[in-house]
Amino acid sequence: MPKPTTTPAEASAPKRRRADAERSVAAILDAALEALASDPDSSMSEIARRAGVVRATIYVHFPTRESLLDAVMDYAVGQVVEAMSGAEPQRGEPVEALERVLRATWRQLAQFHGLLALNTARLSAEELHRRHRPMLDQLEPLIERGQKQGVFRSDLPVAWHLAVVRAIVHTASYEIQAGRIEESDAEAAMLTTAVAAISVRSS
Amino acid sequence: MPKPTTTPAEASAPKRRRADAERSVAAILDAALEALASDPDSSMSEIARRAGVVRATIYVHFPTRESLLDAVMDYAVGQVVEAMSGAEPQRGEPVEALERVLRATWRQLAQFHGLLALNTARLSAEELHRRHRPMLDQLEPLIERGQKQGVFRSDLPVAWHLAVVRAIVHTASYEIQAGRIEESDAEAAMLTTAVAAISVRSS
Repeated sequence: MPKPTTTPAEASAPKRRRADAERSVAAILDAALEALASDPDSSMSEIARRAGVVRATIYVHFPTRESLLDAVMDYAVGQVVEAMSGAEPQRGEPVEALERVLRATWRQLAQFHGLLALNTARLSAEELHRRHRPMLDQLEPLIERGQKQGVFRSDLPVAWHLAVVRAIVHTASYEIQAGRIEESDAEAAMLTTAVAAISVRSS
Repeated sequence: MPKPTTTPAEASAPKRRRADAERSVAAILDAALEALASDPDSSMSEIARRAGVVRATIYVHFPTRESLLDAVMDYAVGQVVEAMSGAEPQRGEPVEALERVLRATWRQLAQFHGLLALNTARLSAEELHRRHRPMLDQLEPLIERGQKQGVFRSDLPVAWHLAVVRAIVHTASYEIQAGRIEESDAEAAMLTTAVAAISVRSS
């Protein structure tokens, strides 16, 4: 039997295989984010089922559960950063801009409170800080701008304000998870307290 | 050989043994608190050495490292609660009282920042909350009193204020551990931000 002639489609097979792999990684990350957000103990089998792939396919891309969790965290951070950046931290009056950016952060984060608790438990404080950096980078120029304009306190360093804002957003998420605050009240509490914590008090 | 007559000292031997045991538990807890505060990975041998007992004595009282860590945390919480209570949360103007109590909390906590990080890493959020309860109980009536007097915000629940104050105190401790704030600046930053976060803004 003669070898079939190479068709253009076959010539680009490696490219297609790469595109297929990228699609399954994306499907796995979407499925994992969704599964872990609702149940931080979701198994690899459950994630595979949701992603519509066999379990072996997950292991091809993520040899360990930790490596999948790391990739899911990067993916989630990417989504939060995109939401923050979309809320235009550079635009307008600093208090309004902070509220707008924190509201966008919060609404994105609200989709995966369980994942926040999971990552806080499994990663060191140093590693968590490193992974929060892209989000803090969205806020830092905004807080500095507010300090220059005299609306955010200048008697405390911007790094401290960033740590406080991060802690207040996380606290709102933990308090929802613990059932100590209603999800419907948490956003307003978080925004009010974050603004109060770093603003200059009018006198 | 006739049996020696029982002396009063021998009659009270069980009592003395109990007193000895209590002294060695106290020595172990003191030594463990000190050792773990400076190095959260301190070994049981190192703790025994500091306490002036043999390692077997530690295991008599604390069969596992976890059980020792739990006892050390209770011991540390007890010290913080004593410091808070000694600062008289019920006395005087609420903002001044809050500053006085948080300063006392902070100065006690400053002796074991490393232990805070260790406990945050090893315990669930729920367990941590349960173990913070005695400290929150010192603050709760003070914050409610400030709300009634109109100096602390009443538009947010006291449970939220408690969670925020706890988060800000912890943030100061973590930021010192991470080297992002000087120990000498952390107390003022923590006090300023905690008061700002929960106070009614003067207008």
